[in-house]
Order: sequence, then C-alpha cells, then structure tokens
Amino acid sequence: MKVPDTMRAAVLYGPEDLRLVDDYPVPRPGPDEVLIRVEACAICGTDPKILAHGWPNQPPYGQFIFGHEYAGEIVAVGEQVDEFMIGDRVVVEPHKGCGVCDNCRDGYYTTCLNYGDNRKGHRHYGFTVNGGYAEYACNHISSVYKIPENMSYEEATLLTTAATALYGIRRAGGVNAGETWAVFGPGPIGLTAVALLRRLGAGRIILTGTRDERLSLGKKLGADVLLNVRAENVVERVLELTDGVGADAVLECSGSTKAVEDAVECCKKNGRIGLVGIYEQPSQVNVNKVVQWNISMCGSKAEGERSVAQVINLVKANPIDFSLLITHTFPLKDIHKAFEVARTRAGGAIKVVIQCQL
Amino acid sequence: MKVPDTMRAAVLYGPEDLRLVDDYPVPRPGPDEVLIRVEACAICGTDPKILAHGWPNQPPYGQFIFGHEYAGEIVAVGEQVDEFMIGDRVVVEPHKGCGVCDNCRDGYYTTCLNYGDNRKGHRHYGFTVNGGYAEYACNHISSVYKIPENMSYEEATLLTTAATALYGIRRAGGVNAGETWAVFGPGPIGLTAVALLRRLGAGRIILTGTRDERLSLGKKLGADVLLNVRAENVVERVLELTDGVGADAVLECSGSTKAVEDAVECCKKNGRIGLVGIYEQPSQVNVNKVVQWNISMCGSKAEGERSVAQVINLVKANPIDFSLLITHTFPLKDIHKAFEVARTRAGGAIKVVIQCQL
Amino acid sequence: MKVPDTMRAAVLYGPEDLRLVDDYPVPRPGPDEVLIRVEACAICGTDPKILAHGWPNQPPYGQFIFGHEYAGEIVAVGEQVDEFMIGDRVVVEPHKGCGVCDNCRDGYYTTCLNYGDNRKGHRHYGFTVNGGYAEYACNHISSVYKIPENMSYEEATLLTTAATALYGIRRAGGVNAGETWAVFGPGPIGLTAVALLRRLGAGRIILTGTRDERLSLGKKLGADVLLNVRAENVVERVLELTDGVGADAVLECSGSTKAVEDAVECCKKNGRIGLVGIYEQPSQVNVNKVVQWNISMCGSKAEGERSVAQVINLVKANPIDFSLLITHTFPLKDIHKAFEVARTRAGGAIKVVIQCQL
Amino acid sequence: MKVPDTMRAAVLYGPEDLRLVDDYPVPRPGPDEVLIRVEACAICGTDPKILAHGWPNQPPYGQFIFGHEYAGEIVAVGEQVDEFMIGDRVVVEPHKGCGVCDNCRDGYYTTCLNYGDNRKGHRHYGFTVNGGYAEYACNHISSVYKIPENMSYEEATLLTTAATALYGIRRAGGVNAGETWAVFGPGPIGLTAVALLRRLGAGRIILTGTRDERLSLGKKLGADVLLNVRAENVVERVLELTDGVGADAVLECSGSTKAVEDAVECCKKNGRIGLVGIYEQPSQVNVNKVVQWNISMCGSKAEGERSVAQVINLVKANPIDFSLLITHTFPLKDIHKAFEVARTRAGGAIKVVIQCQL
Repeated sequence: MKVPDTMRAAVLYGPEDLRLVDDYPVPRPGPDEVLIRVEACAICGTDPKILAHGWPNQPPYGQFIFGHEYAGEIVAVGEQVDEFMIGDRVVVEPHKGCGVCDNCRDGYYTTCLNYGDNRKGHRHYGFTVNGGYAEYACNHISSVYKIPENMSYEEATLLTTAATALYGIRRAGGVNAGETWAVFGPGPIGLTAVALLRRLGAGRIILTGTRDERLSLGKKLGADVLLNVRAENVVERVLELTDGVGADAVLECSGSTKAVEDAVECCKKNGRIGLVGIYEQPSQVNVNKVVQWNISMCGSKAEGERSVAQVINLVKANPIDFSLLITHTFPLKDIHKAFEVARTRAGGAIKVVIQCQL
Repeated sequence: MKVPDTMRAAVLYGPEDLRLVDDYPVPRPGPDEVLIRVEACAICGTDPKILAHGWPNQPPYGQFIFGHEYAGEIVAVGEQVDEFMIGDRVVVEPHKGCGVCDNCRDGYYTTCLNYGDNRKGHRHYGFTVNGGYAEYACNHISSVYKIPENMSYEEATLLTTAATALYGIRRAGGVNAGETWAVFGPGPIGLTAVALLRRLGAGRIILTGTRDERLSLGKKLGADVLLNVRAENVVERVLELTDGVGADAVLECSGSTKAVEDAVECCKKNGRIGLVGIYEQPSQVNVNKVVQWNISMCGSKAEGERSVAQVINLVKANPIDFSLLITHTFPLKDIHKAFEVARTRAGGAIKVVIQCQL
Repeated sequence: MKVPDTMRAAVLYGPEDLRLVDDYPVPRPGPDEVLIRVEACAICGTDPKILAHGWPNQPPYGQFIFGHEYAGEIVAVGEQVDEFMIGDRVVVEPHKGCGVCDNCRDGYYTTCLNYGDNRKGHRHYGFTVNGGYAEYACNHISSVYKIPENMSYEEATLLTTAATALYGIRRAGGVNAGETWAVFGPGPIGLTAVALLRRLGAGRIILTGTRDERLSLGKKLGADVLLNVRAENVVERVLELTDGVGADAVLECSGSTKAVEDAVECCKKNGRIGLVGIYEQPSQVNVNKVVQWNISMCGSKAEGERSVAQVINLVKANPIDFSLLITHTFPLKDIHKAFEVARTRAGGAIKVVIQCQL
Repeated sequence: MKVPDTMRAAVLYGPEDLRLVDDYPVPRPGPDEVLIRVEACAICGTDPKILAHGWPNQPPYGQFIFGHEYAGEIVAVGEQVDEFMIGDRVVVEPHKGCGVCDNCRDGYYTTCLNYGDNRKGHRHYGFTVNGGYAEYACNHISSVYKIPENMSYEEATLLTTAATALYGIRRAGGVNAGETWAVFGPGPIGLTAVALLRRLGAGRIILTGTRDERLSLGKKLGADVLLNVRAENVVERVLELTDGVGADAVLECSGSTKAVEDAVECCKKNGRIGLVGIYEQPSQVNVNKVVQWNISMCGSKAEGERSVAQVINLVKANPIDFSLLITHTFPLKDIHKAFEVARTRAGGAIKVVIQCQL
C-alpha cells in the first residue's frame, strides 16, 4: 500500500482552537517505530482538557496532534523492526518510557523520571508527542500491541481504557479469588473495571454512580449490586452488604474527592483502595482511620506495567463487549461535533470514537 | 433434630484394615466447635495411603476415622459459637493451626509448627484427629465454611480440592491477566485448577496428561490446549505454542518427578512454577536453568491461607460444575468398594464420593 | 517465688481519675497465659488520651488498669504453657487477635475483626483488658516475647515502640537496599524508625521535626540529615537533597495532618508513604498527585505481623541504644507525676517509664 | 585527557588462547555510551569457563575481550549523555537489556528475551560484547554507576559481585528483620552476601563451607556461626541451632548440587531458598518436602533489578571492607598468571583483580 506524503489531521493551534488540516506531513517511522494508518481514536476524559488548556511539554501549537487511544493498521515499519509487519492490526499505549531512568528500568515506565524529554527517548503519544487524531501516526514498537482478529478498531480503542482499569486493580493489590470489590464511578474506566473484575475472580462487585443508565450498563458488564449515590448512602449500603465489615477493596474511578473519603469509610480493616480518577481538588482523607484500619491507598498511573498486553491476552480468552461503551462514532471531519458530544455527554455519551479514515 | 449417641463410622483398625462400626460414639462439640452430620466425604489421593500405612500422629488404630474432604449440615454448636447455626450447610477445611506458632500467626496455618500437637490446638481432620467417613464429625469453627445454597453436598466436597488448586496458583504468584499457564496432571486438583485459572483471568491454559478422557474433561472446564504426554513432547509443544518463549507459569499437579523437570524446561525466563503434587522420589531439577532463567519454584501446602473461603466466594459468582468430576458415589456401607474403585481408577474414576448418611 | 494475692496497681476510676490501689487482686493465668511481675511500663502517646477519655470496650472504671508497653519476669505459667518458664524475662505485645476471624487467620491480628470481644479471644492489653501499670499482669502466650539477656526492663519497653516503627516501615514496602527515606516526627516511633532503617539497609535517612534536641538524638540513632521544619521548607529540602526526584519512601510518624500532605509532595514518582501517626483531623491529601505519581500510602496499625519478635531478633544482632530515649523514670507510686511529665514534655521528656515494683 | 587510538587488551583468540595485544582499536562511544579507562577488572568464576570454552553469541575469536567486573574513569561520553561526565569514577553492570521485550519492560533485564541480540539493543559486557580486560571499554549508560569517592577501583569491582549476592537475597524474599539466614558457600558471592545480610537486618547468619580461612573471613564480614561441611553435618547443625525449626531462609552460593538438597532439608516450614550458584549437574531435590513444607526456591539471575545501584547506595551509608576479599592483584600484562592463580586458588586466592593500566 502506498503511503501518501500528506494527511488529514486535527491540529491544535491554541486553546480551544482545533483545526482540520489536509496537508499535514505524514510522519516517517524511525528505526524502532511503525507507521500506523489510524482507523479509530477515542476521546478520553483528558482530551477536552488538552483542547482547552494544552499540556506541559506538548509539541508547539500549530503542529500538535493529540488523541491517545487509537488503533489502526501498520503500513510501514522502521528498519530495525521485525516484531511487527505491514498489515498488522494494532492498538497503541500512550506511554513509552525513556528506558534508562530508575523507574523505567524497574518496570514503572508510566512514571518515567524523564517524562516529556524526547531526547532521552520518552514519549507520551498524544501529549508530549503527536498522537492519533489524524490519518497516520508513528509509534515506537514498545507502545504497539496486536489486537484480536475479530475485534473492530473502534472497540480496540477501549483496550487502553481497560488497561488503565486493570492497572488500578493491580495497584490495589490485585484480586484475591472471591473478594468483594466496590467500584466508584461508572465512566469508561469504572465500567471496564467491572468487566475485568468479573474475569479476574472477584466474588461480588458493587458499582456506584449517579446515572442509572450507566449503572445498568455496569450490570450488563458484570456488576452484582448497583448503588445510585443520589438515592442511597453508599457507605452505609456497602457496610450493610458486607455484614458491617466493608469491602475487601475499593477502586475509585469517579474523580470525586468525596468518593475518596467514602472509599476509606467503606473498606474493610486491612482493606485496599485503588485510585484511578482525575481529581481537581485535594481530598479530606480520614488518615487516622487509614492508620487504625491498616488501609492501603495506591494511586495508579495510567496503563502501567504492560497492562495493555495483559488486557489483550485476557479478552482473547474471555471477551468483553466493548461496543456497549461506544455510544457515538464520528468521522474525523466531524471532530468538533464529537468533542461537543463528549464534553456535554449529550445523548448519554459514554465513549465517543473518531473514525480517522472517514 | 435429635443427635444420637452412637453412629456408623468407618474405623481404621490397622493397615488395610478398615471396618464399619455401628456404635461409634458421636463426638460432642467443644466450646468453639460444631457438630456436622456428614452428608458426603470424598476420597482424596492421600486416603488410600492412609488406609495402607496410617499417618504420623494419627489417633490410635481402632479409633481412627479418616476422610478429610467432607460436607454436611450443622446439627449442634459449641457454647461459644455464634458464627454458625444449626441447619447451616457447610464444608470443612482439613487444617486448623495452633494459632500461636510463628507460622500460624503469620497466616500460614497449613505449615503450623505444632503439627499434630492436639494439646497446642492443632488439628488435621482425617489425619491427626478424626475426620469424615462417619455419620457425624466435630470441627473447630476455623475449619468450617458455609457452602452456596444450590450446591449439593457431593459437589461441595470438591471445594477443598479446588482450594488446594487455588493455593497452588497463589503460591506460583497468582495469575496476571492474560497469562499462559501450563497445568500438568488432569487429576482432581489439576482439573479444578484449569477451571479456576479460567475464572482468574488466565489467557491461555494448556493441560497435559496421559488419559484422553481426563484431558477432554479439562477442555470442558476451560483448557484451551490439551497435550497427551504419551503422544507428544510436552516441552517442545509448550515452547512451540509460545513462540519459543515458554509458559508464564506452570502448575505441576501430576506428582511425576519427570513433570517437575519438564516444568523447568517449558517455563519462561523469569517464569514461575507451582508444585502441588505428591512426589514419591526426589526430582532431578536443572537448578542451573532455575538460576540462569530466574525461575521460581514454590511448593504449596494444602488449601492454605483461607483458600476454601476464597473458592466458595468465587464459585458463588462464577460457578464451576464440580459434578463433572464426580464419577462415582457410594453409600458409607460400601466404602471398601469405593476405595477399590478410587485405587484402581476403575471405570475412569476421577472423584469417588462417599454418602455418609446412606 | 511466692505470688501475693493482692498488688499495687494504678486503677482508672473515671476520666482523669487515676488512683493507686494497694489491694487489687493479682490476676491468675488461664491455661494459655503467663503471669508477669511487671518491672517497667512505658507511657505511650495514647495513654494520656485513655486517662482523659477512657477507651471503647475498656474494663469498667474502677477496675481498669491501663498501660501497654511493659516488661517483666514471668512468675507463673498456665497449665498448657511450655513455651515459657518461670524466670523468663519478657516484654509484651498489646494486641492478641481472636485467631479465628479472616484478618487473624491471614496474619493481620492487629486489625482483628473481633476487636474488643474478649469472649472471642481478642485481647488488647491496657485497652480492652487490663495492662501494665501494676505489679502484676497476665498475658496470653501469643503476646509475650523473651528479651535479650543484657537488656534492662526499662529499655525493653521500647521494643513495642520500635516494633510499631518496624511495622510502619514494612507497610511502606520495606527497605530496598540503599534507599533514601524521610522520617517525619522525632518522637519515640520516629526515632526508633531511624535506628531501624539504619539497620535494615537504608542508604540515606532524613529526619524532620520541630525540636532540635530530638533531632540531634535522631543523629545519634543514625539519621544522616536533620531538618527542622520551623527553620526549613521540608518539601523543598528533600527534593533538593534528592536531585529533584524525591525520597524513595516517607514514614510519617508526627501525627501532623500537614506532614501527610508534605509526604505526598516530597516522595518520588512511584514512591511509598507509611503512615504511623495518630491524626486528630482529616488530611488534605493531593490525591491527584498520588494517582499521577503512582504513589502508595499505607496505614500501619500498631506492631502487627509479629514485629515485636522481629525487632528483638534484630537488636540481638545489632543493638539499638534504647536508653537514649528514656528521659525519665518514676516509681509506680509517682505515676501521676510521670503522666504530668509525659504530657507536658517537661525537661525534654521523650519516653517516660514507670518502674512498677518501686 | 587525550584518548589514544589503540590500546592494550587481552584478546581471546580461541579456547585457552588469550593473547595480549597492544594495538587493539580503542572503541568509540555511541550516543548513549561512555568510554571508560578501565582501572581494574576482577576475575569472576565464569571467566575461566569463557577462557576455556568461549560463550554463546560472543564476538569472534581474535576480537573478543572478556571480563565483566570492571571499574574505571570516564574519559569520553556520547553525544546524548548528560548523566555522566568525563572524570566520573564508575563501575559497570554486565547486563544491559534490550529495553523492549516483556521481561525488560517488566524490570527483569537480566533475563532479557533478546539475550545476545545486539541489534535489538541487548548487551552482555564481557560475554556477548567486549568487556574489561583492556585499557578502555565502552558501556551504555544503563550499565554504568558512579562509585563512592573513597572506594578504590579494585574494591569497586566487588560491587558487581555484591550486587549478585543482593539479588539472590531479594529473590529469596528479602530479609525480614531478625531472621536467621544460612549462607552456603564462602566464595566472593557468599561472603558479600554475609556482609549484606548483616546490613539488611538479619538476626543470625550461619555460613557454611569447606575452607576454614574463607569461613573465618566470613566471620569478619558478619557471620555469627561458621560450619565447616567437612567437619560437621550442616543440616543437623542448622536444625540444632534453630530449635529444630530450620533457617528462615537459605542462600545457596556454593554451586554444589548436594548443597541445594541440604538447603531444602535445613530450611523452615514456609521457608525460602535463594539459588545463586552455577551448577554443573541437576540436583536431586526433595520436591515432596518442598510441597509439604510450603518452601519456595528462587533462582536468581546475576545482579538484576538495579542491584548494583542499590549496593552502592547501601555501602555509602554502611561500608563493607571489600579489600578483605581481594587476595591478589596483577597488572594486565600478567593476566595469564592471574588466571592461573584464580583457577588453582593458589595462595588461598579469593578474588583476583587485574589492574588494566599497569
């Protein structure tokens, strides 16, 4: 297949100034990179923030292509690459560490100590280097994973989301068989967390949120108990459901600071809390209870420790119907409309996916 | 319900001298014990050995009732007990630690340092104290677990087996989502391990064994690949199936010393091996490879770290059809025949269960 | 040695109403208990709170003897006891779990789910059952440890304190060789933490606090860098000392909610925080940073997981001069004065120890 | 400083054919590499094997410079390098992973799945690429560490050895404070293990071996008990020393297959075994005991997981007198004599170090 010299791309020219450009140069893969014809790129909760405010260490306005949850077909490979072939269907992971700092060498590349330093080899696709709202994107082989044969590109964009959920579960100590987990927040991460917990051996899964439609989607994905925080006292109900003992673990995906406080109140003595949300304010944590109850609270940075690879191998064996989460798709040319829907959650939007070849 | 003073029991009078007795005194529960009307007690692989040779620290011949995988209904509770009620349907865990030694206090009660010392509070039901081949049995509350409502007592006896498999998986580092596991030996432990791995997030499960019927049962329980060691070279095939890299983890349940050696040869660099079998001979382990490949080999003692509770909570959410493993049931009065079948594996016997009220 | 029928004890009759009584009945050891002639009992930071407000589930006012950091000589043993002999020099651990609940069986007895339920076998000496401000005390063998031969009883009371520090270190992930740790708060726990970190392989130990005398004591015990929070900006200084990267781990022992916030700000990406303080208010935790930096925060409940035993074995090999921390000793008859000193920190009081036979 | 174009090097021309060459081209550092003027390179136990048989994937005979425990001064840096400066005193780590394979990204670069594949970025200095028996050597920055100011280059070569010991300790589960460890084999790894265990919080350290001089050196480095396997039954003695319970952990560094068997016999129920030796034969492992006693056996590959960095930070705080281990030094020109001494252990040789500028 012939790769053109220029492509259509959504380029960020400034805060809230996203422009469709038809003559953006198609990037060329370096020795360890592949060129991907992007088929689908999902809008993540972070993207509207990038659109509004940019991102530290981003490429210059006027050149910056963001979007970091994308999937497509490999159309060219760098000279060193034999891990992938032209024609491979792949999804990307936004983080690629420098490979040299302490954290990278210890396996924690999502907290690379050279974050944003391209010269040192760090890449955060769609943040500090270009990403996926374009017809083509270049990725280092460490950030590319083959997707299951029968999975659509649109669904594949959810693999990155699910990997973030998985890493949160892992950071909260992983699942011991049969445990009771409470998942706070039925957004894309919370909902995929439910589906994963079901497949990782959880016993009972309690999902909390404010919107009944999202909660009922959680039921389809495997939640056992749904609690609408507008109608019920979550802490009381979780304690009630667990004979007063509390949940073995809580995964906080809502981004609500109040939810972080609730997590402490409804987890078991010696329980674990995983934090995956994006929080705009500090949280009033009952640290005394954290001590007295021997509770652990672990932040979880993105889809670390090769969680994308893990999720892919898991869903090959035990598929998750990611299409349930995709409420809207738009062609690249309608990206402004797509962002509007994502931002306002119009029509019950959960995951909005851009089809980059349309 | 009225509890009688005497009961029918299979009492071991000496090596291979198992006698049915109709006037064995029904035990009375101590303050922290419950009395169980035993409905079903499965024959474990260890039982024929106990029958043949006895067990260190066992009760005296002429008084010894063995059998340690049993389930039934609680018919009396000790004065301190409020965790259980008369009428509760329960399964037992054979090990109850002393609660005081270093290992017990650290949570490793299956390796209690006071093993066999009843005075110190240790109990190994069906081994060092009486067990389940009888109409009634007494158990400390630490060794009793409520079973799911819709599960038969016969199936419930498999919970102990499955818990042993689960502990092996846990000792081998647990399952990282999507991993490739090889399970060696399609006996009751290996087969339940397959079912568990499927429910704990494994990606691909390879089951090896010598009997095609057992292997195909493994397929029903969730195995992806079956390898008959009589027809295929397991090491070569596992490497082939994993692009030469090897399995992420191997669970050795066959008890074959050769299989232990194979485990080392077909696991990944940095891979893990869980050992659950009963081995009659030392194994020729390629320790140099263990070092050079950074491999871990972990023995796994019984259903440790509350694995029975974990399995129960897991199967409540995600049932395993344990009835597939129960090939034969016999009333208590036919226990000699039952042992004969279990020992010879007549009729493709996998799990032989005694119905103790019949 | 003849054990008398009655003894001198400091009995709590109500809030702030502590009375010396000379005819308190000497307790008699149960089958698994030992009777200790208490030689020394240290005042812990919790004790003035008990004096002022009592404790949930405490023995009735008028009978309650508190004090939980005590050491002495065994003068009688229960009928089942062969782990200890009359004449053994011992220190106690305040927590003894029920041994039956999930947390106890998993090894986490300081977070026993039957806390305060004596009937279930739980004991919290000096809190929910009587403790050490008396001539004699009875303890279950699970809560008693032999002390090194050459260690005084006064110093031995610090073993419990050090064990609490050790558990905090362990809960924060333990020490990887050569790591940089920041310890916040040079009270008895923080200071013993410094001494332990030095002996557990830490590379650099930064100690922060408000009092220069305590900080300089920290230097004697092994701290490399002292930061007085009144004179320096701890967050800035820790970052400066670590080339902007932050400490590998922070142990927060000060009980200051601000210090918890600082801990988040001065730990490394992927760093760990252990929380050991007693906090009167919630803390404003920058949870977003906890997520983005993949930070773990672990509460640490008391001297869990047999930390007292661990500390004893460690100091046998590598002694800590606990006498440095003992600023005052008082005979039991002067316990009111002792509490006054402990409460006001008069004369630079750090650890105030009651000599219960004087 | 002017770097010459050619250098003296010991070049391997074939099995047992090591030649001193004076006009070997000085390598030039790539963008992420540094050029080191090698001051000292120690002979590792593997080196005589390389001399005799070569190494898989080695550079061609006639070009191959081996030696992998070296230290020196940086004299040139690649264009990308700002982590190091000319004049830095450094030691190297032989392993540099590809950075891309599963194991490398998980932090396990010593078991890189692209071992020996230079094109993929893997390096094993002194094995698959050139090493340190020369006046100069080039190393990737991931394999270089600054050494303490007051440490000689000769001693610094022992940092790699000590890091291998440290990794073995870590693979055996690390040290819980106060534990009893048995170290088998008083070679350089076993001896540095003793020194490390002392500094990592072990309680009691038992060292076993066949040579009294080496054992007594172990005493100087921190061992509490010395057992000469020629004079005593190690298994019996360890059990005796531990009240019949066994050692908490055993670190097998001797390379004797019998010692591996002994390790199983003298470790505690639930104990751990770290394997660090090089074994020429399989070992007859009592796998049944491994299962029944819940024992873990972990192979440990080289100085993994940045152990060199950890050791350096540890010895900065708590120095180890590595000079005790250096029994012989030779100038590079006498490398044949040095190998002879190392091989025959003439004069009680422990560590033989080549001074590469002499």
